[in-house]
Amino acid sequence: MRAMAARRIHHLGVAVAELAPAVATYERMLGARVEQRERVDEQGVEAVALLVGDDSRVELLAPLGADSFVGRFIERRGPGVHHVAYGVDDLEAELERLRAAGANLIDETPRPGLYGPVAFIHHDTFHGVLTELVESEES
Amino acid sequence: MRAMAARRIHHLGVAVAELAPAVATYERMLGARVEQRERVDEQGVEAVALLVGDDSRVELLAPLGADSFVGRFIERRGPGVHHVAYGVDDLEAELERLRAAGANLIDETPRPGLYGPVAFIHHDTFHGVLTELVESEES
Repeated sequence: MRAMAARRIHHLGVAVAELAPAVATYERMLGARVEQRERVDEQGVEAVALLVGDDSRVELLAPLGADSFVGRFIERRGPGVHHVAYGVDDLEAELERLRAAGANLIDETPRPGLYGPVAFIHHDTFHGVLTELVESEES
Repeated sequence: MRAMAARRIHHLGVAVAELAPAVATYERMLGARVEQRERVDEQGVEAVALLVGDDSRVELLAPLGADSFVGRFIERRGPGVHHVAYGVDDLEAELERLRAAGANLIDETPRPGLYGPVAFIHHDTFHGVLTELVESEES
């Protein structure tokens, strides 16, 4: 049995104005490869997950409109790192543990994500870093 | 021989106002462990590297004064992710490749870092993300 804790950085979420030039930059500059793409209309976001090396992942997030969470983030802070996601073995158990430790949970219960169930924790808990937990089979 | 490209995310650099409460948060919330600490007076920064799980790393950076690069970052944007570092096998070769690809290099040549030679690439090259390359034995 694994100790309850984050396993590793699962991905970085990076807000960009436009996907195509950003994907091209990561491919050309870092040798990254596209893993998957997804458009989520109800959240106003289009995402491209890139693999960097064998086991690191950058998720580029572009707004479908200015009044989306990514659009508002870019308007407020400019493009850049939007969130950091850590992989966990048991998301429900982690949320319970974090709640008991005083974390400010955005998602009280897991919701579906690109890789499996996810939950976000408010950036004030992590000193300015919007943090996501991802439960997935692999890393 | 490995292809020239980034191997993986080596660490995230996170700017915080104060180290002790941020270290405590990462330990308590994510089960992170302190790997090393370093104070670099000439850069006005104190750093604590934390391991998350077996192979991910978060480097917390606190300013020693308001007129340091981390102090100015926090004043401008608030605490949060300051840079993303990728591990590479051959930093000089990567810098040459990036320069040829049109990257805006902050460091034209490698300089010493916490883990080995490092070089920073301007955030405008990576669509808002200040990016570091680290050459080190391990990941």
